[in-house]
Amino acid sequence: MEYFDTRDYDLAGRIGKLKTKHGIIETPYLFPVIDPIRQQPSLETIRSLGFNGIITNAYLFYRRNKGLPKKIHDSLKWNNTIMTDSGGYQVLIYGDVEVDNKTIVEYEKKIGTDIAVILDIPTGTKMSWEEARQALFETNKRAVEALPYIMDSDQLWVFPVQGSPYKDLLLISTSTAWRLPYHINAFGSPTVLLEKYEYDKILDLVGFARLHLPPHKPLHVFGVGHPMIIPFLVALGGDLFDSASYILYARDNRYMTETGTKKLEELHYLPCNCPVCSKYTVKELLEMPRKKRVEYLALHNLYMLRKEINNVKQAIKEGRLWEYLEYKSKSHPTLRKAFEIVKKYTRYLEKYNPETKGTTHALLLIDKDSHHNPRLIRIKRKVYGMLSNKKLENILLIPAYKKPYNQQIEYIEAKRKYPEYTILFYHPYLGVFPPQLANTYPYFQHEVGIIDKEVITKASKEILQVINKLRPKKIIIVQPVEEKYYLLTHEIIKWLRTKTTYTLDVLSFRT
Amino acid sequence: MEYFDTRDYDLAGRIGKLKTKHGIIETPYLFPVIDPIRQQPSLETIRSLGFNGIITNAYLFYRRNKGLPKKIHDSLKWNNTIMTDSGGYQVLIYGDVEVDNKTIVEYEKKIGTDIAVILDIPTGTKMSWEEARQALFETNKRAVEALPYIMDSDQLWVFPVQGSPYKDLLLISTSTAWRLPYHINAFGSPTVLLEKYEYDKILDLVGFARLHLPPHKPLHVFGVGHPMIIPFLVALGGDLFDSASYILYARDNRYMTETGTKKLEELHYLPCNCPVCSKYTVKELLEMPRKKRVEYLALHNLYMLRKEINNVKQAIKEGRLWEYLEYKSKSHPTLRKAFEIVKKYTRYLEKYNPETKGTTHALLLIDKDSHHNPRLIRIKRKVYGMLSNKKLENILLIPAYKKPYNQQIEYIEAKRKYPEYTILFYHPYLGVFPPQLANTYPYFQHEVGIIDKEVITKASKEILQVINKLRPKKIIIVQPVEEKYYLLTHEIIKWLRTKTTYTLDVLSFRT
Repeated sequence: MEYFDTRDYDLAGRIGKLKTKHGIIETPYLFPVIDPIRQQPSLETIRSLGFNGIITNAYLFYRRNKGLPKKIHDSLKWNNTIMTDSGGYQVLIYGDVEVDNKTIVEYEKKIGTDIAVILDIPTGTKMSWEEARQALFETNKRAVEALPYIMDSDQLWVFPVQGSPYKDLLLISTSTAWRLPYHINAFGSPTVLLEKYEYDKILDLVGFARLHLPPHKPLHVFGVGHPMIIPFLVALGGDLFDSASYILYARDNRYMTETGTKKLEELHYLPCNCPVCSKYTVKELLEMPRKKRVEYLALHNLYMLRKEINNVKQAIKEGRLWEYLEYKSKSHPTLRKAFEIVKKYTRYLEKYNPETKGTTHALLLIDKDSHHNPRLIRIKRKVYGMLSNKKLENILLIPAYKKPYNQQIEYIEAKRKYPEYTILFYHPYLGVFPPQLANTYPYFQHEVGIIDKEVITKASKEILQVINKLRPKKIIIVQPVEEKYYLLTHEIIKWLRTKTTYTLDVLSFRT
Repeated sequence: MEYFDTRDYDLAGRIGKLKTKHGIIETPYLFPVIDPIRQQPSLETIRSLGFNGIITNAYLFYRRNKGLPKKIHDSLKWNNTIMTDSGGYQVLIYGDVEVDNKTIVEYEKKIGTDIAVILDIPTGTKMSWEEARQALFETNKRAVEALPYIMDSDQLWVFPVQGSPYKDLLLISTSTAWRLPYHINAFGSPTVLLEKYEYDKILDLVGFARLHLPPHKPLHVFGVGHPMIIPFLVALGGDLFDSASYILYARDNRYMTETGTKKLEELHYLPCNCPVCSKYTVKELLEMPRKKRVEYLALHNLYMLRKEINNVKQAIKEGRLWEYLEYKSKSHPTLRKAFEIVKKYTRYLEKYNPETKGTTHALLLIDKDSHHNPRLIRIKRKVYGMLSNKKLENILLIPAYKKPYNQQIEYIEAKRKYPEYTILFYHPYLGVFPPQLANTYPYFQHEVGIIDKEVITKASKEILQVINKLRPKKIIIVQPVEEKYYLLTHEIIKWLRTKTTYTLDVLSFRT
C-alpha cells in the first residue's frame, strides 16, 4: 500500500511505516492523547521521548474554537502527525454530542488533521444486541455518507469497526470494512473491559475482528493504554493505539510497572530506570507539590509505554514475539488468561508468520506453552509433510539431546551399523526430524528449558502419530547414553509396544 | 545481630541493614567491582545511581602500592562502604598469588577497608573432589589462622564457603562457618557456571549452602552480576553480590536486557528507559568513539542491576517474591530450569516466610506453578491441621468461584436448608476452607489466572485428601450455578463416588 508499508512480521504483529502528511509513524505505535488546553507534560517533552504523533479530540477542538476551522498544527504548535478522534468517545460517555457526522468530518478536513475519524456510535460493551445493531448500522451509514467528503482529501481516514461484544455484529462491520475505501480500520473502544482488566475478552474480540478485516490495512485499537496488554494486541495484529492513561493514572497517583499499575503510596522502591525514577525516590515524589508530581508520574508512565513498544518491536525483529508473550503472560493472572486467547488464534497467526527471517535467533523452548509456538508448529508441519511423502519401511529412532545432534555417539554408531535404516531424531519439543536438518534452524538454533511430565506426554503423542503415519515394518529405537534423557524414550517405547504392525528393537550404546 | 538487622522477609529473601564503618548498606545489595586505576564510569557516577558500597581487590591494591598501607578510602576518594576481595579470584584464574594469607589480612586491616575477605582458595567448579577437599581445608585453616588478627578490628570479616560442586565438601565448609566468628559468609565464586548460564546448578549449590549456614548472618555470593539470576539467588537467601559484569560486558559491546544479554549490534530498539537509552539510539551508540560507548553501556548495565535490585526489594515488601520468580522464570529457558530448583527448596523456604506481613497484597494464582507458592502452602497446611482436629460427620461442599465466597447464592441457600451440615468451600488453588475464612487473607485477597486440566488434577487430589481425612458419614456437594466452573466439581464427584464410607448427594441450585 502506498501509505502503509510493512517489513518485519512475527505472529500477526508487524513493524510498518505509516505515511502521513506530517511525517512517518513507525508502527506499532501509541498516540498519546493530548489535551489542547491543559496538556501535561508539554508537547516538547512528549516529542523528546520519541513520540512523533499525537491524538486529540476534533469535537472538543470544534467546541473550543466555536466551530472556527483553525489549523490544528499551528494551534497546537506540533509539526508532526496529528490524529483526531471525532467525538465518538463522548457519545459513548455522555450519550450524545452537539454536532452531526457531516459537520465534524468537514471540520476535521479543514483543520488539516493527518488522520481523522468519522463520528461513530461506539457500541461499548453495555448495549443490548438490538442497540448494538442499531449503533453499528448508523456508524456504517455515516461511513458511507462521509465518502464524498473525504475521498479527495490527502488525509488518512479511519473506519470504526463496531458491534462488540456481539461477534455476529462485528462480522457485519468487518465485511463493510472490506467494501469501503477507508485507510485505517479501528476497533471501537474496549475501555470498559480494560477498566475491569478483562484483557482476555478484549483480545478475543480484537482477534476475531482482525481475522475478518483486510490484513493489508493498519488496525487501530481505541483507548488501549496499558503496557501490559500492548504486546498481546500487537501479536493479534494491532498496529496503532492511543491512550490518555499516562495522565489519567498520574492524576490518581498511579504508577505503571511491568506487572501492573500501582498506587505510588504502595511502592517502597521505584522499579524503573527512567529519568524521573533514577532522579527521585518514592518519598520525594510523594512530598512534591501535586502539579509537579502529576507531571513526573505522567512522564514515567509515558516512558513505560515507550519501553513496551520498543520491547515489542525488538521481539518482532528477533522473531521472538511468542516467547515475549509467554514471558509477559506470567506477570499477572489476567495476562495468563489473555495468553490462552492468543493460543486460540494460533492457527490464524501462523499464516502471518513468514517462513524465514533475516536473522534467526534461537527458538526458546521453555515449557509446555512453547509447544504452541506458531513458528515451531509451522516448521514441524512442513517437515512432517515431507516425511509422510516418503516410503520408510525401516526406521531407526535416535533421541536428540545434545547439539549438534548429528554428532551424538548414538547417531554415528547407528549410521555405521544400520545403513539399511532411515535414521530419524526425536526430541521433546522439536518432535521428529531427519539428520539432514540437524544443523539448520531451529534444529540447531534453540534452547531447551524444562522437560517435565507434561512436555513428555505431549511430545510422545506427537512423535507416535508421526511414526504411525510412516507405516514402518521395522523400528529400532535407541536409548540415550545419558540417563537423564530416558523418560521420553521410555514413554515412546511403552506406546510402540502396543502395536504389532512392525517389529521393534530397543538398542543401547551405553558402555 | 548488632551489625545486621533484617526487617522484611519473603521466601528466604529479606531486606536488611548491614552496618559498616562507612555507612549502612541496605540488602539485598550488589557491590560494583571497581578498578582503582582505570575505573569507568566514575565513582561519582556510580554513587549517583544509588550505589553506596563498592568492592575492589586488596591484592591488586597491595601490588600497585608495593605493599604500602595507604588508606583505601582516601586513595579511591570514596567515603562510603568499601569491600575488598583478597586475591582469591586471582588464585582461581592464575593459580597463585604472590602474597600469603597473613600478609593480605593484615594489609586489609591497615588500609581500613569496611568489609574484608581472607585469602581463600576458591574451588571453582573444575577441581576433582580431592583437589576441592584440599582447597577447602586450606581455606578453613587460613580462616582459623586469621582469627587473632581480625577479632580486634572494627571491620566486617568474610568467611568464604568452599567445596562446590561437591555437596559433602560444602557441608564441611558450612559447619566450619557455624563455629567461626566471621560476620559474613560468602559462597565461593560460581563464575564458571555463570558463564555457561548454568543457573540451575549455581542455585542448587547456593540453596544447599544457605540451608546449612547460620541464617542470621548475611550471605554474600561472589561474582554474580547478571540481573536475570539475582531474584532467584535472593529467594534462596543471598544478601550480597558483587560483579564486574557491567563493565566487562560493556567492553564487549554487550547490553543487559530483562531477558538476557544482547550484543548491541543485535538490537534495533533499546528496550530500556535509563538516561542513556532514553537519550541515544542503537545507531548513535554504535557510532560513538569506543571509550564513550563502553562508558555508556556500563552505565546502562549498572542501571539494569539497580532496577533488578529495586524490583526484588519491592517484591519482598509486597510478599510477592514467589510471583516475581514465576514471572522471571519465563524470560529464558535457563531461568525456567532455575525455577525448578527454587521449587525443590520450597519446604526450606517456607520456614523463612513469616506468618503475616504489614500489608497483604493479593496472592496471584496464575497457573499450576502457583500451587507451589510457599505462602499458599503454609496457610493451607494450617487450615487443614485445624480442620482435621474437628469431628465433622456431615459436610457440605460448595465451589468457591465468586468473591466474596460467602455471598454466593449456593452458600446462602445451603446454610438455610442444611443447618446440620458443616459447610466447606473448595477452590482450584485455595483448596478447602471454612466460610469463616472467606473474608480473610488470602481467601479474599487473591486473583485467579487459568483453571486448566493440570490445575484441576492437582486441586482435586488435594481436596479429596482433605475430605478423606475428615472421615465424614454424609457428604453433600453443590454444583456451581455458573457452568464454566463445572470441571473441578465433576472431577471431585467422580472420585467421591469411588468410596462407600459415606453417603453422597449432589445438589444444584440452578434455576
